[in-house]
Amino acid sequence: MDIGIIGGSGYTGGELLRLLSGHPEANVTAVTSRSRKGQKVSDTHTHLRKIYDLDFEDLGAEDVAARADIVFTAVPHGTAMQVVPALLDAGVKVIDLSADYRLKAEIFEKVYKIKHTDPRDAVYGIPELHPEVAEQSFIANPGCYPTGASLAAAPLAAAGLIELAIFDSKSGISGAGAEPTEVSHYPNMAENIQAYKLTSHRHRAEIVQELTRLEPGLKKISFTPHVIPSVRGILTTAHIFVKRELSAEEVNGIYGDFYQDKPFIRLIKGIPMLGSVRGSNFCDIGFEVDKGSNRIVIISAIDNLVKGASGQAIQNMNLIFGIPETTGLWTPGIAP
Amino acid sequence: MDIGIIGGSGYTGGELLRLLSGHPEANVTAVTSRSRKGQKVSDTHTHLRKIYDLDFEDLGAEDVAARADIVFTAVPHGTAMQVVPALLDAGVKVIDLSADYRLKAEIFEKVYKIKHTDPRDAVYGIPELHPEVAEQSFIANPGCYPTGASLAAAPLAAAGLIELAIFDSKSGISGAGAEPTEVSHYPNMAENIQAYKLTSHRHRAEIVQELTRLEPGLKKISFTPHVIPSVRGILTTAHIFVKRELSAEEVNGIYGDFYQDKPFIRLIKGIPMLGSVRGSNFCDIGFEVDKGSNRIVIISAIDNLVKGASGQAIQNMNLIFGIPETTGLWTPGIAP
Amino acid sequence: MDIGIIGGSGYTGGELLRLLSGHPEANVTAVTSRSRKGQKVSDTHTHLRKIYDLDFEDLGAEDVAARADIVFTAVPHGTAMQVVPALLDAGVKVIDLSADYRLKAEIFEKVYKIKHTDPRDAVYGIPELHPEVAEQSFIANPGCYPTGASLAAAPLAAAGLIELAIFDSKSGISGAGAEPTEVSHYPNMAENIQAYKLTSHRHRAEIVQELTRLEPGLKKISFTPHVIPSVRGILTTAHIFVKRELSAEEVNGIYGDFYQDKPFIRLIKGIPMLGSVRGSNFCDIGFEVDKGSNRIVIISAIDNLVKGASGQAIQNMNLIFGIPETTGLWTPGIAP
Amino acid sequence: MDIGIIGGSGYTGGELLRLLSGHPEANVTAVTSRSRKGQKVSDTHTHLRKIYDLDFEDLGAEDVAARADIVFTAVPHGTAMQVVPALLDAGVKVIDLSADYRLKAEIFEKVYKIKHTDPRDAVYGIPELHPEVAEQSFIANPGCYPTGASLAAAPLAAAGLIELAIFDSKSGISGAGAEPTEVSHYPNMAENIQAYKLTSHRHRAEIVQELTRLEPGLKKISFTPHVIPSVRGILTTAHIFVKRELSAEEVNGIYGDFYQDKPFIRLIKGIPMLGSVRGSNFCDIGFEVDKGSNRIVIISAIDNLVKGASGQAIQNMNLIFGIPETTGLWTPGIAP
Repeated sequence: MDIGIIGGSGYTGGELLRLLSGHPEANVTAVTSRSRKGQKVSDTHTHLRKIYDLDFEDLGAEDVAARADIVFTAVPHGTAMQVVPALLDAGVKVIDLSADYRLKAEIFEKVYKIKHTDPRDAVYGIPELHPEVAEQSFIANPGCYPTGASLAAAPLAAAGLIELAIFDSKSGISGAGAEPTEVSHYPNMAENIQAYKLTSHRHRAEIVQELTRLEPGLKKISFTPHVIPSVRGILTTAHIFVKRELSAEEVNGIYGDFYQDKPFIRLIKGIPMLGSVRGSNFCDIGFEVDKGSNRIVIISAIDNLVKGASGQAIQNMNLIFGIPETTGLWTPGIAP
Repeated sequence: MDIGIIGGSGYTGGELLRLLSGHPEANVTAVTSRSRKGQKVSDTHTHLRKIYDLDFEDLGAEDVAARADIVFTAVPHGTAMQVVPALLDAGVKVIDLSADYRLKAEIFEKVYKIKHTDPRDAVYGIPELHPEVAEQSFIANPGCYPTGASLAAAPLAAAGLIELAIFDSKSGISGAGAEPTEVSHYPNMAENIQAYKLTSHRHRAEIVQELTRLEPGLKKISFTPHVIPSVRGILTTAHIFVKRELSAEEVNGIYGDFYQDKPFIRLIKGIPMLGSVRGSNFCDIGFEVDKGSNRIVIISAIDNLVKGASGQAIQNMNLIFGIPETTGLWTPGIAP
Repeated sequence: MDIGIIGGSGYTGGELLRLLSGHPEANVTAVTSRSRKGQKVSDTHTHLRKIYDLDFEDLGAEDVAARADIVFTAVPHGTAMQVVPALLDAGVKVIDLSADYRLKAEIFEKVYKIKHTDPRDAVYGIPELHPEVAEQSFIANPGCYPTGASLAAAPLAAAGLIELAIFDSKSGISGAGAEPTEVSHYPNMAENIQAYKLTSHRHRAEIVQELTRLEPGLKKISFTPHVIPSVRGILTTAHIFVKRELSAEEVNGIYGDFYQDKPFIRLIKGIPMLGSVRGSNFCDIGFEVDKGSNRIVIISAIDNLVKGASGQAIQNMNLIFGIPETTGLWTPGIAP
Repeated sequence: MDIGIIGGSGYTGGELLRLLSGHPEANVTAVTSRSRKGQKVSDTHTHLRKIYDLDFEDLGAEDVAARADIVFTAVPHGTAMQVVPALLDAGVKVIDLSADYRLKAEIFEKVYKIKHTDPRDAVYGIPELHPEVAEQSFIANPGCYPTGASLAAAPLAAAGLIELAIFDSKSGISGAGAEPTEVSHYPNMAENIQAYKLTSHRHRAEIVQELTRLEPGLKKISFTPHVIPSVRGILTTAHIFVKRELSAEEVNGIYGDFYQDKPFIRLIKGIPMLGSVRGSNFCDIGFEVDKGSNRIVIISAIDNLVKGASGQAIQNMNLIFGIPETTGLWTPGIAP
């Protein structure tokens, strides 16, 4: 399939290119970047030297659509809504990696304080929770934190068992993007950990949307993110209080059933860690029951740039085109 | 004052030496290590070259006591109880950095699965919470996690306001000690974060002891530790659910009153981070009220080896001897 | 082809498995480990969960040979010479990742202070320098440092131009293996850099062997290694003094000609760095001429576990079997 | 003594403040920053909260001079020459941490491509090499790389023994300053090492100036810097070729004599590393003779912000005022 990438100079663009280089049916035909127009893609993404011989182009949506069967939009929120309509009108499939279509428009406007100019519905692309992905031509690719948090708690939510869910998430700094900032300045981040948006991170709205869809009455959902001195990965510590005491066996059964036949979910006996999923599309999940307290601590580990962004986008692409969802993604992480 | 250190080859021993080198009244007269007997202290602690010209000795408790006004025991739990009685019998003051005397003996035995051979009472040495430290000759120096967690939540507990407290703590790897292990192996720890003892870490008992002392009816206290790729520091994210909605102003007032005149507590408007306290005895505390949910997220940051161990021990020493608690400790952290 | 791995629990074993999982013609039939016999391979290499469903076995050389067309020996030096003869006698091809067959036996014995019990010749497997690899059934896979250093200097040596070569190399800590040690202890390695074996590292002998083969009269070759706080990679800074002043254009021409048609060598205009080659089999090379001093500073960057070990071993395997050398290896590094 | 700091918002300014807080005779009376005028110093340098209660001011040189006995100028090169004349005219002592006065004016202009507007002589402030510091009122504080390199090689240069000196230096990223850049962006620096200015770094001119002063005929001096994933520190690997073969004993004697009575030089038997000097003013030096090659590999380790900048500035200040050079600086590094 012919593929266009709108906004290819950032980390999610680079990661799409990295992963697609190993995809047997993918053929990247256009990569856009306004600011780097005319430069070699591999001058920005130096790990892709010799792998791609492409230049960044400054193309309109129609021009990209004309070369592609599917287009990934990897642009800032607020920008995607400006190109998606033209792409869809041109008849190509679209996977949007921005936040623009993840939430219902009225919620989006409240959370992002931006007027939505294209309030259309999109399927929320966590394939493990949304099998309807397979028949779509337009997918809103989820945020990195919500992917890790939702996958950690979904089986319990689907069973209607959650009373209170506190997600304490720890992300690698690549989640903040390729532009140097105060937070990403090496001397500020090394030997440190920075909590931020203690109660009000925008990704909370996605988590709420997903979990209350599965468990309609669920009200108490908290989310606190942190940045750790790691480049990639999100470890989510989900402190879940359930409505009745559950044994470890019960929880095992609930998760095993729920994620049966989901290739990228690995339920493990130990405690997941970033080191096992780095560079891969896997989500490792493990848990421990806190006896006598109705609390279950569930840990999920993903690579924020893969399962939390570009890998999941390709998984969605595979499903849209009716090929096995693991195509081009069945690669292990890199360790150590 | 003449000072002996029993067990000086580990990180807390090294940190005692580092901090005491700048203490105007401290004179270290003995540092013991069985395995490194006869070696220079600065061959192990190479940052102390030219600062100390001492050798490790293999001395009994009485021999150390004979040279000292006060002795720090920086030995593994289970070992301290074998030397503390002789030290106290010899009439010296003792600050024990192990876990042996932090908990009531019967609780210690349950938590540590060790028979306690010296079930005596000791004052739990968080001076901000235990003003009675000043009159003691024997102090149980607290664990690193409980110091960060208790200081974060104590004002609300003392006000009887906590309904549920979840401590999600992130520690530097130095907390695991100077001996190489699987967890501390650089390739395992770099670019990673490892949750462990999700519901059953032994330090939870100290946190429970402190907070229920302040708020007797408090039952729901959870604690989950993580190790992050940082050498020093503990950041504690305290997800506190309170009995009634509190405004930020109220919380500010409660904390301001509670920690009035406590020199090492810094209440800050932003969000504390390890980078501000590294190498220092300060504990930075900040918070955010999650409007409409009765949840307050409180962040505390300490250096696990200073306020979480050796610095706090010296603070206790100062108070015991009736000198200003900041003596030798009023040094800023090191940043960047 | 059916593949056996003798000694599969370490980093080079894990990396062989990772890379072979994407190789279209590879079929791993046996992975041995005496100490982990009966355990799942993916309990040790947790990133390989769901990718491999293999157990470690404790098998003799003949048993491995019976299941394989080719065997990789990833065992400590001194051990390989105990299994290689039986493997070759059994008629399988062998690629030895240890040091045992890299040097002539008499030099090996001097450098490693071990009696060589199987002094047979092997081709030294840097394929870019040894096209004869293609016809072999036994390859001595090179050391990580010598790969980076030799590739950096070989074109100048082949032109007979080097007067003095000083290799100042910086390696990630994974080169020291999977066993925790003092050096690899996170608090010792973080925020640090450790020079070691300032003048006498054993890998120097390999560099000397390769460069003097290309430039027989070359005598002055120095090598000093360092470990940096990075998991993977070797950056080699080659301070080369040449016999006559060379312009940048000349050097460009020499390198371009020498590495023509070598797919894994990327000659770049800027300065190579580890971040561009992590996880890949590429070797990036760049240089700067120090005008007026006959000095050229050449930088090469490799991933020590890939081009410096397991990737190069698979490249050799491909050549031995007459398939394109890039098979299964034409994957970009992972960045950021 | 009353102290003014012009340009206090960067790392060297922060480090001056950190170190001066423990100096028994120092009293900081003014800290300037144009861009942060009116802000609390401890809002920028958060580790200094409660230690300093000062605001940044936007003051002219005369105003600072009026409040101070000595002024540190910690401003970019090109800027210092605009304030130093007025400070000296006002009669205060000045230590300039910029590059403006380190080189003779005509060399400065060539190296920095800036017209020098105040070509006055200053003593080059490495006190171990310039005892004349003690009688000065104006000091050019050396660059970080030249401090580490010059101290490593000075004894051999003073003995007239160096034939060729190659300095391969590895610096922490804090040397690049407090402003976020591409190089200092965490994902770019982590798990990486970046060589730069392979043959033409501006600090080379300082090294040449110092070593040729000691050994007039010395011509061959090369310098190649690297940035490593560490915040602080410079490790210099000096590959020195000497005019005649030297034994380890001879080298020991030369260094021991040369650095006799220099408190901040620690000659060690092992190999220096950053971990031993972090946060301190020490320079650790060790070496190994490469038998049979006239090469000596000398390693020096300093903290770039202390001995490489602010600590050395305070050492110079002490000497200028006739107090022991160790005053306020006799503190160990921080480890681990």
